Amino acid sequence: MAAPPPIITLTTDFGVRDPYVGVMKGVILGINPRATIVDLSHEVEPQAIAQGAFIIGSSHRFFPSGSIHVVVVDPGVGTSRRAVLLVTPTARFLGPDNGVFTHVARAGYADGEGLAPGYEAYEMSNRGLWLGPPSDTFHGRDVFAPVAAHLSLGVPDREVGPRLSRLTLLPQATPAWDGPVLEGSVVHVDRYGNLITDIPGSLLRGVEGLVFRVRGRPIHGLSRSYSEAGSLLAIVGSTATLEVAVRNGSAAEALGAGVGDPVRAEAPLLSGPG
Amino acid sequence: MAAPPPIITLTTDFGVRDPYVGVMKGVILGINPRATIVDLSHEVEPQAIAQGAFIIGSSHRFFPSGSIHVVVVDPGVGTSRRAVLLVTPTARFLGPDNGVFTHVARAGYADGEGLAPGYEAYEMSNRGLWLGPPSDTFHGRDVFAPVAAHLSLGVPDREVGPRLSRLTLLPQATPAWDGPVLEGSVVHVDRYGNLITDIPGSLLRGVEGLVFRVRGRPIHGLSRSYSEAGSLLAIVGSTATLEVAVRNGSAAEALGAGVGDPVRAEAPLLSGPG
Amino acid sequence: MAAPPPIITLTTDFGVRDPYVGVMKGVILGINPRATIVDLSHEVEPQAIAQGAFIIGSSHRFFPSGSIHVVVVDPGVGTSRRAVLLVTPTARFLGPDNGVFTHVARAGYADGEGLAPGYEAYEMSNRGLWLGPPSDTFHGRDVFAPVAAHLSLGVPDREVGPRLSRLTLLPQATPAWDGPVLEGSVVHVDRYGNLITDIPGSLLRGVEGLVFRVRGRPIHGLSRSYSEAGSLLAIVGSTATLEVAVRNGSAAEALGAGVGDPVRAEAPLLSGPG
Repeated sequence: MAAPPPIITLTTDFGVRDPYVGVMKGVILGINPRATIVDLSHEVEPQAIAQGAFIIGSSHRFFPSGSIHVVVVDPGVGTSRRAVLLVTPTARFLGPDNGVFTHVARAGYADGEGLAPGYEAYEMSNRGLWLGPPSDTFHGRDVFAPVAAHLSLGVPDREVGPRLSRLTLLPQATPAWDGPVLEGSVVHVDRYGNLITDIPGSLLRGVEGLVFRVRGRPIHGLSRSYSEAGSLLAIVGSTATLEVAVRNGSAAEALGAGVGDPVRAEAPLLSGPG
Repeated sequence: MAAPPPIITLTTDFGVRDPYVGVMKGVILGINPRATIVDLSHEVEPQAIAQGAFIIGSSHRFFPSGSIHVVVVDPGVGTSRRAVLLVTPTARFLGPDNGVFTHVARAGYADGEGLAPGYEAYEMSNRGLWLGPPSDTFHGRDVFAPVAAHLSLGVPDREVGPRLSRLTLLPQATPAWDGPVLEGSVVHVDRYGNLITDIPGSLLRGVEGLVFRVRGRPIHGLSRSYSEAGSLLAIVGSTATLEVAVRNGSAAEALGAGVGDPVRAEAPLLSGPG
Repeated sequence: MAAPPPIITLTTDFGVRDPYVGVMKGVILGINPRATIVDLSHEVEPQAIAQGAFIIGSSHRFFPSGSIHVVVVDPGVGTSRRAVLLVTPTARFLGPDNGVFTHVARAGYADGEGLAPGYEAYEMSNRGLWLGPPSDTFHGRDVFAPVAAHLSLGVPDREVGPRLSRLTLLPQATPAWDGPVLEGSVVHVDRYGNLITDIPGSLLRGVEGLVFRVRGRPIHGLSRSYSEAGSLLAIVGSTATLEVAVRNGSAAEALGAGVGDPVRAEAPLLSGPG
């Protein structure tokens, strides 16, 4: 039986109103007609690197091993910013070197700029794999799509360009308990207005007496489902991080909250009595 | 020649801003890399079961026999609502048991809760076909996508769980003439602002002297195309039901009408002279 | 090795809220289960033929030779407007005969209504290739999708219907220098609010002292990237035509400009002194 078709996912801030995404698919299929292309999201806020980083960071592990992920959130297109290929034990990632792969590169590794052990990165400078002389404005079509397609055909990683020892990473730390307090922030607002945070659910489960605070409003305890309890609720969502939601409504609207807003967890019992 | 790739369609209220739909596709392709996945709509209004029911009910017959349709409009996720597989003579349907398959299950069958002859239903309780322990919030990824993928590989229907004799159906009746009057309602508003109703076109064709009323406004007779006649028009649309439209404009805006609004047809000649 | 799957692209004004696009895909896959279907855009403004013409005209060359492009921007559906197949040296195009293929048909050919040498057109009148008796409102599903699918299986072009010698084309001329002045217009506004014009970049490169005017505002010279220079900038964009952009903002909003607005280029040095 033939090998299964290789998967290439696309995450961009291009929207779906313009033909940009379709054109990237045309370029990919022109090089590898058997690629299976999957859209992750094209509605990243324009040039919102941190949001793109959240989306690919929380989604890639649901794809089969060997998948190729292209992320084009690229405010620096046309400048000297590098284009990179990041190779992990299970997948490959192509995009601008602007921090969009922070969560992927950091897996299990706290160093500010470095790569986790077992990871490799390359600068995409081999123009022989590009569509032709690139435009100043659309490297998704001219660079990332064709290189991804060539990789999906079996071109070795090292042919895309020279090895890199570091990637640009976002300065964001992973939240952790500091005594009875844990400070995190909103990293995404989903369609329902749920506020998705960077606070790992694993730090919350089993903790007694939890209180969360967002925009000054307290929320007591963790709920098990969106349909539970009162208007405002805290839940460990599908990305395994804390989400703040409103039953049958929008937490973003109810609280006037958005990406970047701080979210605080308090566990009085962790600190011991008075 | 190999069998054609199985088709899995997706209908959700997830929107396309978040990576939820892409992640479901990753899960499906991880199980069956040769599945062909088609988006029906991800813009069902959040938790609008009746609208999801309309979309799958009016669309599935345009897909080849053997297609698998996943519908995730699931306000009860995380509660005890059942997940179901509905098998019809031509297709399979997976989703929450909340009425979203009303129009599919009811085909030719007027019983309130039952299944039409030749139809079968199963409760999806076999966790061996799931992605793993399910989250409380995202059964599209954890339950429906993987079970659909397993079915597309040939897993027998009965392996998803025990047989069911009834499905939850929406309480909506199919409109019919009551003397010279037929009462229906708006079930969907499309991108153009056309008001799509549940009144079958077959009940209107050939009827003399038709007058329709929406939000108090009369419309005389059926048009043959959107470009015909004056501003407000009634037409049997592509779903074979009555639609109310405005030439080059939005009937929803012009009338201030939306999903759930009543639409009335009158045929004075059906009742005989006063 | 088997031939690669044929590519069918879809460009419509259907939006993605309704299941119309998904249903077209169901019809295509019912006829050719191995077709690879790519969305170009479904967010063409309702019935905006010129915008649909721009999208297909600027995108099709990025798809492999042999691709089939379906464009359904069809305000005349249900009237006597013709449905056409346009065959070019590299691709096939199906849609209503309303000017939507103007830029494709005109490639290198300035005649108002005619076809460029090497191009052929056919009227799609052979109902044997349709889905069945067509609705009055949805020829995308009933005519264009099934005919495209049959062509992708190898049905000869001439079987769709009789040969045509002319297509309906939009009256738009290609901008050219008239002494020191070149007059063009905005043909598309992309997601970022960039104003995409019909002025070929090839007419601007190397010209000294360029000044552009949009809505009375002057822009001096061409930029090389979106991140260059001040607030308002002119750039040869990814479609190889002039775009007007605002760094990290929307030119459409900043200028109050939209599709159809005139854009003027001036090159004082072209006219010689005084």
